[in-house]
Amino acid sequence: MTSGTLFGVGLGPGDPDLMSLRAHRLLGATRHVAYFRKAGRPGQARRIVEGLLRQDVTEFAMEYPVTTEIPLSDPRYNDMLANFYARCAEHVLDLLGSGQDVVVLCEGDPFFYGSFMHLYTRLKDLAPVQVVPAITGMSGAWTATGTPITWGDDVMTVLMGTLPETTLSQHMARADALVVMKIGRNLEKVRRAITQAGRLSSAWLVEYATMPDEKVSRLSDVTDTVAPYFSIIIVHGQGRRP
Amino acid sequence: MTSGTLFGVGLGPGDPDLMSLRAHRLLGATRHVAYFRKAGRPGQARRIVEGLLRQDVTEFAMEYPVTTEIPLSDPRYNDMLANFYARCAEHVLDLLGSGQDVVVLCEGDPFFYGSFMHLYTRLKDLAPVQVVPAITGMSGAWTATGTPITWGDDVMTVLMGTLPETTLSQHMARADALVVMKIGRNLEKVRRAITQAGRLSSAWLVEYATMPDEKVSRLSDVTDTVAPYFSIIIVHGQGRRP
Repeated sequence: MTSGTLFGVGLGPGDPDLMSLRAHRLLGATRHVAYFRKAGRPGQARRIVEGLLRQDVTEFAMEYPVTTEIPLSDPRYNDMLANFYARCAEHVLDLLGSGQDVVVLCEGDPFFYGSFMHLYTRLKDLAPVQVVPAITGMSGAWTATGTPITWGDDVMTVLMGTLPETTLSQHMARADALVVMKIGRNLEKVRRAITQAGRLSSAWLVEYATMPDEKVSRLSDVTDTVAPYFSIIIVHGQGRRP
Repeated sequence: MTSGTLFGVGLGPGDPDLMSLRAHRLLGATRHVAYFRKAGRPGQARRIVEGLLRQDVTEFAMEYPVTTEIPLSDPRYNDMLANFYARCAEHVLDLLGSGQDVVVLCEGDPFFYGSFMHLYTRLKDLAPVQVVPAITGMSGAWTATGTPITWGDDVMTVLMGTLPETTLSQHMARADALVVMKIGRNLEKVRRAITQAGRLSSAWLVEYATMPDEKVSRLSDVTDTVAPYFSIIIVHGQGRRP
């Protein structure tokens, strides 16, 4: 029996109309999809493909273990996630081994801060894999602001809101254009860092980019202390513009 | 007469199969396309859409003035480009004013180091504009390497090879993941900067990502002094991976 192919298919920032032709074709053809989600939630990746899958598709929802009580620094946190990814990979490998293709649905671009890569590293030497890149959430966010993110020789840096405040502000001071992701409960820390770097007045908070609830605000006008999961902060570059 | 709409349509990294459903639909419907290209060349944006346009489409090829004899620092360089963009914007505005929609074909993502923004800033207050984001060339490049670009809390920095060597090496030393674009005749300088930053052994040169001539090489194995226009250097982040 020849192994099936594992497809890591990026779905883009949220609007189904922004997925690629290739992604759309693969979704409509596959018998097996798998996707990560929080327990008890529909999951963003699954939501994007609503109405696009075959009637007879088999779905494998990979639900993250609840980790809120364990700090990130605790080795048990890492162990729990590693076991989870190993179990998911094992199930997908069983399907591939029976000759079936499996499409893993990925929010954004699969190789850019995604969960797919945890399956990918465990399976890439055991079965054929194809990765379909996609429009990133940050592209959706800067497009929503109505202003180009980078010009000429601008330096752009992408930061995660989970980083320490000092690390954030140092990087924020050095780059021309900024993208900050994983805002959520880190919003106040990120705002302090961006203020420290002198960039607050040119920062924008984009929530739910390309989705029905899309909202763009000046960060200096935002009074909330927590941002939705789908939030990205954007500071535009000011490079050469003839 | 109501104005037509200006569409800035990102076409992605090169493979037509990677354009979005929205881009594909707009291309098949429009009566007017415009695109930038070097004089005497077919142009990458135009090449991507080959076979996808209406039979009766009108094409406006915006050919960059030849600037090779004028250094970037000369004010005449900037003037020449500014005049060029103004003339292009005027022609597009005439079409919009006659009630026609115009689709501007954009390589990669329109708001990410693109030429479209020079039309956009000149026309956005004069006519309705819609921008369609797209898969960036860098997403195409890191996908081609077969390795995820960023994990966990990795910091990613995007640099242009046109920057001074010291600026490049300083940024290269501080970020986890790196993307370097506009390599071309800057290849040797970029390689010195990346060596100086201690990252040469983990750097990859990706040429023609997602195109038929796609090629991935370790930068340390590359002996050429000039890289093709469609070249991107990638250094992958090494962040947390359960």
